[in-house]
Amino acid sequence: MSFSVPSFTDLQVSVWAQRLRHKLDNKTKPKGSLGRLEHLAIQMGSILGTDTPALQQPQLVVFAGDHGLVKHGVSAYPSDVTWQMVSNFLTGGAAVSVLARQSGIQLHVADCGVNHHFEPTNGLINCKVALGTADVLQGPAMTMEQCYQALANGQQIVLRLQGNALLLGEMGIGNTSAASLIMARLTQTPIEHCTGAGTGLDDTGIQRKQAILAKALAANPQANAPLDVLAAFGGFEIATMVGAVLQAASENRIVVVDGFIATSAVLVAATLQPLVLQRCIFAHRSGEQGHTRMLNALGVHPVLDLQLRLGEGSGAALVWPLLQSACAIVRDMASFESAGVSRNTQAPQ
Amino acid sequence: MSFSVPSFTDLQVSVWAQRLRHKLDNKTKPKGSLGRLEHLAIQMGSILGTDTPALQQPQLVVFAGDHGLVKHGVSAYPSDVTWQMVSNFLTGGAAVSVLARQSGIQLHVADCGVNHHFEPTNGLINCKVALGTADVLQGPAMTMEQCYQALANGQQIVLRLQGNALLLGEMGIGNTSAASLIMARLTQTPIEHCTGAGTGLDDTGIQRKQAILAKALAANPQANAPLDVLAAFGGFEIATMVGAVLQAASENRIVVVDGFIATSAVLVAATLQPLVLQRCIFAHRSGEQGHTRMLNALGVHPVLDLQLRLGEGSGAALVWPLLQSACAIVRDMASFESAGVSRNTQAPQ
Repeated sequence: MSFSVPSFTDLQVSVWAQRLRHKLDNKTKPKGSLGRLEHLAIQMGSILGTDTPALQQPQLVVFAGDHGLVKHGVSAYPSDVTWQMVSNFLTGGAAVSVLARQSGIQLHVADCGVNHHFEPTNGLINCKVALGTADVLQGPAMTMEQCYQALANGQQIVLRLQGNALLLGEMGIGNTSAASLIMARLTQTPIEHCTGAGTGLDDTGIQRKQAILAKALAANPQANAPLDVLAAFGGFEIATMVGAVLQAASENRIVVVDGFIATSAVLVAATLQPLVLQRCIFAHRSGEQGHTRMLNALGVHPVLDLQLRLGEGSGAALVWPLLQSACAIVRDMASFESAGVSRNTQAPQ
Repeated sequence: MSFSVPSFTDLQVSVWAQRLRHKLDNKTKPKGSLGRLEHLAIQMGSILGTDTPALQQPQLVVFAGDHGLVKHGVSAYPSDVTWQMVSNFLTGGAAVSVLARQSGIQLHVADCGVNHHFEPTNGLINCKVALGTADVLQGPAMTMEQCYQALANGQQIVLRLQGNALLLGEMGIGNTSAASLIMARLTQTPIEHCTGAGTGLDDTGIQRKQAILAKALAANPQANAPLDVLAAFGGFEIATMVGAVLQAASENRIVVVDGFIATSAVLVAATLQPLVLQRCIFAHRSGEQGHTRMLNALGVHPVLDLQLRLGEGSGAALVWPLLQSACAIVRDMASFESAGVSRNTQAPQ
């Protein structure tokens, strides 16, 4: 088994940007006065290849998996919380369930490697590679075969999804550790700049986590190429997400990236294929230490800054109405001509 | 005629905060992991006096008026754009029309002092004090009688509005100048720190605007008390908004403040009655130079930072879904007990 990155076309962003900028500049408002919203409208128009962008049937997938590393005490919560939260997503009580419902976003949960046997349930996608990853202090979190399987699973999930936008979510006790390890190795950042409180460690806990992560890096010195890094540090939910991101981006879907862990999946995907980033909207700057550096490493700017540090796709769901607004502005606003409004008399048109 | 500030009760924010914090901490998420959203939920619960906050029948009022100062060249657009945009709001083609429609927010336009005679139209509130303010280079923009009339009009508008939330919007060519003057005098800030590009002046235009505003301050040396400042620098839409803010806040409605001009109205209202601020949510940090200093002077933190500089209430409409999310979180999420999810094992409960 192996993995090949799907083929990508360059979006011709500058061509679409010019066309959409012209359209926006004829709307009844001072030029550029809707700020970031206009940039988002231009990006989404470029992705969808239209000057009347419309978001259709948004799909949020929560990729879930467990982590062998958790037994060393890197998280404030026990591993069982992963499967308990999967159930909570499916019964509608979790934050992302509430937020997705509010905005008419369809919610799926992908069991990529949770240490639990689930009954088949509406909304649950079974793509389990194993009952959690191996212990990264002893070597790679997964075999390359398992990594390829997870990547292929992610592609398959997206191939079956409707709509033109994929919102990324994740659940996995221990997965801020995996994301920190991926970040440290791929961006050559010291592990202490990549490690944060996760679900709520105190300072002593963060220091212990840092020490364990330093050992995990030392235990996997051979992992330097993107897929080797992904396999070495896991988890199954991140690897599946990488496959999903590559597939969705190659199909010119809008990819709405949540926080620290989802961004780590995009980091892997963009290292494999930089054109991925043309299709990604980064929903928010997480309160998790390390996320700002990761965003800077990618050269991207998040839309929201609400000190969220929950994951699940909660930030992606929260930014969704703003993306709808950006599309509505370019589609539905009147032009100066159609509304009979006078133009700026002091600036060149 | 005169004006008295309506009576206010202190919201007992600390009592409600404790109750809502306890409820949020039992939801299936790490404590505090929804960041700013949790603070908003606590604030709205405190305002509405409930631990199950629900937003009902949101009302956005665009307060509109014209400014005598415009003839001196402080804006990139001619005064006629004020009435033209009022028509655009009412026919649904303006940015705020599109955004309000998207989120099910009822839109009203209050003609507080536009230099145009409108036919009665659905959605248009006639509370015109005059056909625009006087020239502030020659003295006060309005008489105290006109100022009292505008304040009373704002109160009357809110008394007739349904729902429990008021979103502030405004339209008036020249009104960033009025807001800058109010800010400069009430916060004792040099006029160059209060003056920005407005609807799109270039650097030369901004310098000319600054020089004119310095003259306006010099022409009104007697204006120091809040209502004297309001009357001296205008405009009718800002004065009407001050009355509306005081009335809405005194009734414990949630007041969603838009950008630079709406914040200047809150600055006047909060100078008269500081408890106003308990009821205010500041939607966004405007791209207009001066807004950050004005927010700092009030000691408040905006939710969004999207480089908007349009006004109309566009930022207030854009933040609305996030406020709905904050309420939904505290109302609809499952608790650890109800969802059967294990708690944090490393932090005190």
